[in-house]
Amino acid sequence: MKIEEKFLKQAQELARGAEIVPNGVMGLAEKLQTAANENRPLRVKLGLDPTRPDLHLGHTVVMRKLKKFQELGHTIVLIVGGATAMVGDPSGKSETRPALSKEQVNENAKTYFEQMAKALDVSRAEVKNNADWLHSMSFVDMLKLASSTTVAKILTRDDFNKRYKTARPISVVEFFYPLMQAYDSVIVKADIELGGTDQTFNLIMGRDVQNFYGIKEGQIAMTLPLIEGTDGAVKMSKTYPEHCISLTDSSKDMYGKIMSIPDNLMPKYYLLLTDLNFNKENNPRDEKMRLAFEITKMYHGENKAAEAQNEFINIVQNKNLPDNMEEVELKEPVNILDLITRLNFTPSKSEAKRLIAGGGVKFEGEKISDIQLNIAKSGILQAGKRKYAKLIFKG
Amino acid sequence: MKIEEKFLKQAQELARGAEIVPNGVMGLAEKLQTAANENRPLRVKLGLDPTRPDLHLGHTVVMRKLKKFQELGHTIVLIVGGATAMVGDPSGKSETRPALSKEQVNENAKTYFEQMAKALDVSRAEVKNNADWLHSMSFVDMLKLASSTTVAKILTRDDFNKRYKTARPISVVEFFYPLMQAYDSVIVKADIELGGTDQTFNLIMGRDVQNFYGIKEGQIAMTLPLIEGTDGAVKMSKTYPEHCISLTDSSKDMYGKIMSIPDNLMPKYYLLLTDLNFNKENNPRDEKMRLAFEITKMYHGENKAAEAQNEFINIVQNKNLPDNMEEVELKEPVNILDLITRLNFTPSKSEAKRLIAGGGVKFEGEKISDIQLNIAKSGILQAGKRKYAKLIFKG
Repeated sequence: MKIEEKFLKQAQELARGAEIVPNGVMGLAEKLQTAANENRPLRVKLGLDPTRPDLHLGHTVVMRKLKKFQELGHTIVLIVGGATAMVGDPSGKSETRPALSKEQVNENAKTYFEQMAKALDVSRAEVKNNADWLHSMSFVDMLKLASSTTVAKILTRDDFNKRYKTARPISVVEFFYPLMQAYDSVIVKADIELGGTDQTFNLIMGRDVQNFYGIKEGQIAMTLPLIEGTDGAVKMSKTYPEHCISLTDSSKDMYGKIMSIPDNLMPKYYLLLTDLNFNKENNPRDEKMRLAFEITKMYHGENKAAEAQNEFINIVQNKNLPDNMEEVELKEPVNILDLITRLNFTPSKSEAKRLIAGGGVKFEGEKISDIQLNIAKSGILQAGKRKYAKLIFKG
Repeated sequence: MKIEEKFLKQAQELARGAEIVPNGVMGLAEKLQTAANENRPLRVKLGLDPTRPDLHLGHTVVMRKLKKFQELGHTIVLIVGGATAMVGDPSGKSETRPALSKEQVNENAKTYFEQMAKALDVSRAEVKNNADWLHSMSFVDMLKLASSTTVAKILTRDDFNKRYKTARPISVVEFFYPLMQAYDSVIVKADIELGGTDQTFNLIMGRDVQNFYGIKEGQIAMTLPLIEGTDGAVKMSKTYPEHCISLTDSSKDMYGKIMSIPDNLMPKYYLLLTDLNFNKENNPRDEKMRLAFEITKMYHGENKAAEAQNEFINIVQNKNLPDNMEEVELKEPVNILDLITRLNFTPSKSEAKRLIAGGGVKFEGEKISDIQLNIAKSGILQAGKRKYAKLIFKG
């Protein structure tokens, strides 16, 4: 196929940070050319798990990519995994997924889309629930789907392979999950499917199963790295709320959390969370502020981002107090650990202890070291670099 | 559980030649006692593959066992595998099973039952087609069934294990076959399932899956050895017609074929195909005649068995000609190989060549050695010990 220069360039831009299988950037360029030749938009699929409707910056990596496709006039197809969610996950995993009712699935999906709207135009996307076709599959349909692949192939999937080799149980029903999401690609006629790199196997399975059902040029898989949370160590996830940057975080929290990432995480955040390029010649602090400003601007607008930046400069860099502090009335003496967790400064008491042990908690400018301490007077409480409360004691 | 002497004795008799899992003869005795305590018959299941309706002596091993249960007043439940047959077997096996229509399944099942009637009282058996419950399973039902076992467990099945280890493909749908037949046991509430020893895994899976669906005391598995064909080497099967003794074979063929088995196969035939005991003190030829007579009597009646025995003595032992020979008119000279195969004396020309090479073909009492020979005169043709034709040349 002759690829026009234009589509090669588009493909290169779209491929930023992504891995594409098969055929890399050329595979994507061919899809773009095909769509132009056939005078139709590409169908770009993303599967959503409606059991966890809270979105964080990690999710935006893929969503931002969808938006680029949308800007080029292609069609985004969002698949809510209703069928799977309604069955639940009976596997031997420590973290089992609960079965959800249809109502819960729809409600979660709604929350999901509201948050997604911050990153792309959901109203222009095709939204489908795979319960609509999977639940109506007959016995014969299911067996046909099951005959589309081999046991050995599914066992090559990394997590299955590890579990099989270490004799941890894999339920036969789990073999159906990759097949079901692959069948979604058949139904929606996806040209491209996006996902995290942990989804590579499933996405390629989608291509194979499309092929089995007679779709000759199946979807290409476009996978994007998972990003680490603010500690730079563990994958960003709601499971570690203190290192997770949610789309529902306030502009000041978002800005401040981004400022707390380790310097070596900056290139990855630049690459995957923005359209800007990381400049290693710059002063790291300035470069991090540029990153924090850019991302906060995306989800809260320029004014809020500027406000957050000013406050950060004021309180963290100039050690001033923030302009607007939460005022908290104490009616009786309160233990410092209880107070910190009640104010949501840390997600747990053990986190509060750790913060105190690290010298991160101050009352009226004095470090607190005694976790037994009861606060029984008015004053400014500070936890970490950016969290303040004005305590008013009325005991 | 306290087992009455009577049921222990019954169990010992029923167990002749069989392996019982779990708990061997005691497991069976407990089932018999339970049925008596609950004042109900046991439900004894056998699954039938309606793709191959021709029955041979190998099938009667299990059928005879069913008859014993029937004689003790228990209920035989015959499951026609309509659901599986209608799907066909898409596995990587060299010998793939074709998908059958519902009509074909019913027709094959009918033939099957007609032949089965020679070994047990089909009219008193419950006959079911698993298409009746499997085909109406929904998506959620199927996933529930799939969640009843693990991949590792299914991969312990001998044939799967071998194929997995030697990298021969196993389709995911094949994982459903053991689950489906196991689900049959749930539906029909089987107390005991019978099968060949190659079915041990499936039968125990039936017990496990019953358990998953809340049946506490699941079925026990009663497996019986597969018997070899008349060559004593390969499992009896239609695939090797010259070594296979069909229930539709004439009384003379049946008797003659049994007389052709190697002596060392006699004890197994006695054990599994009759109620008689092999007597190693007897002259082997007499013992084999007793066996051939007994089996022929079962499927053709005493008169026919006696007739077959007399002919055998007459033509094989006393080298006389049989009383009733087929008369064949030849209108032109016919090649000896063509003639032998046309008369169905051997199933193929290569078999005919082998028979000639072994000195097994005679014309008018003279051995034939030339496979190019054309027969152009009247006379008696003999192939092997028992096959004769009277050729009448009218060329």
